[in-house]
Amino acid sequence: QNALLSATGTTIFTVMSALANQHQAINLGQGFPDYDGPEDVVRAAAEALLDGRNQYPPMTGLPELRNAVAAHNRRFYGLEVDPNAEVIVTSGATEALTACLMAVLNPGDECVLIEPLYDTYLPVVKLLGAVPKLVRLSPPNWELPRAELAAAFGPKTKAILFNSPMNPAGKVFTAAELAFLAELIQRHDCYAICDEVYEHLTFDGWKHIPLMTLPGMRERCMRIGSAGKTFSLTGWKVGYITTDRGLAANVTKAHQNLTFTTPPNLQRAVAVGLAKDDAYFAGLSAHLQQKRDRLGEGLKRLGFGVLQTQGTYFITTDVRPLGWNGDDVSFCRALTEEAKVTAIPVTAFYASENAPNHYARFAFCKGDALLDEALARMEAWL
Amino acid sequence: QNALLSATGTTIFTVMSALANQHQAINLGQGFPDYDGPEDVVRAAAEALLDGRNQYPPMTGLPELRNAVAAHNRRFYGLEVDPNAEVIVTSGATEALTACLMAVLNPGDECVLIEPLYDTYLPVVKLLGAVPKLVRLSPPNWELPRAELAAAFGPKTKAILFNSPMNPAGKVFTAAELAFLAELIQRHDCYAICDEVYEHLTFDGWKHIPLMTLPGMRERCMRIGSAGKTFSLTGWKVGYITTDRGLAANVTKAHQNLTFTTPPNLQRAVAVGLAKDDAYFAGLSAHLQQKRDRLGEGLKRLGFGVLQTQGTYFITTDVRPLGWNGDDVSFCRALTEEAKVTAIPVTAFYASENAPNHYARFAFCKGDALLDEALARMEAWL
Ligand SMILES: CSCCC(=O)C(=O)O
Ligand SMILES: CSCCC(=O)C(=O)O
Repeated sequence: QNALLSATGTTIFTVMSALANQHQAINLGQGFPDYDGPEDVVRAAAEALLDGRNQYPPMTGLPELRNAVAAHNRRFYGLEVDPNAEVIVTSGATEALTACLMAVLNPGDECVLIEPLYDTYLPVVKLLGAVPKLVRLSPPNWELPRAELAAAFGPKTKAILFNSPMNPAGKVFTAAELAFLAELIQRHDCYAICDEVYEHLTFDGWKHIPLMTLPGMRERCMRIGSAGKTFSLTGWKVGYITTDRGLAANVTKAHQNLTFTTPPNLQRAVAVGLAKDDAYFAGLSAHLQQKRDRLGEGLKRLGFGVLQTQGTYFITTDVRPLGWNGDDVSFCRALTEEAKVTAIPVTAFYASENAPNHYARFAFCKGDALLDEALARMEAWL
Repeated sequence: QNALLSATGTTIFTVMSALANQHQAINLGQGFPDYDGPEDVVRAAAEALLDGRNQYPPMTGLPELRNAVAAHNRRFYGLEVDPNAEVIVTSGATEALTACLMAVLNPGDECVLIEPLYDTYLPVVKLLGAVPKLVRLSPPNWELPRAELAAAFGPKTKAILFNSPMNPAGKVFTAAELAFLAELIQRHDCYAICDEVYEHLTFDGWKHIPLMTLPGMRERCMRIGSAGKTFSLTGWKVGYITTDRGLAANVTKAHQNLTFTTPPNLQRAVAVGLAKDDAYFAGLSAHLQQKRDRLGEGLKRLGFGVLQTQGTYFITTDVRPLGWNGDDVSFCRALTEEAKVTAIPVTAFYASENAPNHYARFAFCKGDALLDEALARMEAWL
């Protein structure tokens, strides 16, 4: 059997969700809302099943959705793309990530990855025979270590996989940071896979800027969006890649070998979602910001060190101020088994040695009553 | 960019479907029905969207569907599997194929492939760094060349990818052929990825036998089924893998990196489908057999050499009896542009040199009126 996979663990999200179920814990681990997405989008998906368009849609996606993705790029970012040649619909952002990596990496190529990292990044880079070069951001400030980032690029660098807003850090990269990165990418003549699934989940006036909109980046970026995250429908598994036509051909051929296509009714509903008015998008982030504050203030009250969250579904906390002496894994296990609340140990997002090991990630995309109950359980436990 | 993908063409199915659209041709190329799947299954998918279960389902699939797949294995093949540890739901059979190959192959491993082959097999094996060993079946009889098959196995063989009922050959492998294959697999201590998406589309009393049901094969096979094919809903992209628990772990980890999960409403509807009564499954093949006969007899009348179709959606025809002097590619192009009917050149299913190049594949999973109209157009053209 494949040695890399045999050596890989089951994703931490599944492990912790299973543990949560086993202990009847409130699951603030895996990032999914416990509320449903917009009713009109869900209804559109149901109606779209009933008019007989249930066969293979075009490989790159239905025209309705490709047009909607192009319009969304124009509306939010002033980014002009050809919906017929520069948009590829995928079966979720996970597939999109793998397709983009597959499209550009050859065995032996180097790929820059930034820790903390989502847990498919590293195994996929390795499965493709490429060589990961890890650069580390650390809590509590998650500052971009510019010298180390520059040093990670070299003559063999083919791509960087870049996530903003960043999970679990809750960091939204600034224009200055993006400009620094863009310069490196140009200088080393390489590509960027931009995991931007949390693009609409930013707070306190932080605005997401796609790397693809920076000068010189249009031809180099593969920008990944997620209907699951943008419409609070994580099970739908509809993702979309926006990229230059020069890259789109290989991305499409990767997609051809991974899933080939994505259910047409869900595609049509996501097109309805992307056309929603500005109030929807503003409401989405305002709603989540309230939840972030509700959980964040509660955690602070309980004695957690609460890090800043500029975007995403997640708050990272420092568990040392609680007087916890063990590491993050033992904390999250005890929290699940004893307090009946589940969080994710942040070391799960680090692949290299000596990761910061006293941070726990909490998802706040949950109903207020559930957040309050989780806080009450933790209070009773502490 | 990735050299293997850059050198790969866009899938023939997309190329020919695009050409069909361009010329307003009747598309008997890409294999998808032009009628909808069972109404109760479609309705179940619509209803399942509306009760708030639209977030990530478990990575290996919803219990409802895993149980239904296990029950389906028992009911049709007497195959007992643990729904909690031996069934993995995927976003279509394409993902399932890639996940199974990824689960077992290491770079440098050999993988036996049988021509004619579906067009993702070879690129995926190569992308994983494995070495394809091709064995060829040829029209008109598609006989299994036993000596050549045996010679393709060796000390480096890790797996065989095996498709029965076989596209485009329409061949259903016999118990004797399967026994021969099983003996080779055991002798060489390797695995079989079994593409059985056409399992319920067999005719004239031909019965599909899963390789996994043969002695010694349970621990070695990854058996792939497709809701798209079994319920005439090709756009849904719901596949399922049945495999031994010893292989399921790595298959699941591959799936984790490819799509992670599959839309819950479609999973729930497919569970409804798999529970349908025997009349449904008998009706499905009887209905398609009529279509096979309608198109096959028509093609014979027009002068095509019509090969036997024991299963699948497809009839392979020999175009030489028509007096066609060019190859299959030029035939299919002329047929699309001039007769306004699209078929797939069978050379697209061969990767090695000197493939039989005067055969065209026609899909018959279409309404009777459309089949008749296609025959009329071809008659006028010939
Ligand atoms: C695909 S399961 C993980 C969901 C997620 O993005 C997270 O919890 O970080
Ligand atoms: C995934 S598109 C191809 C459909 C099919 O199986 C075929 O036409 O052979």
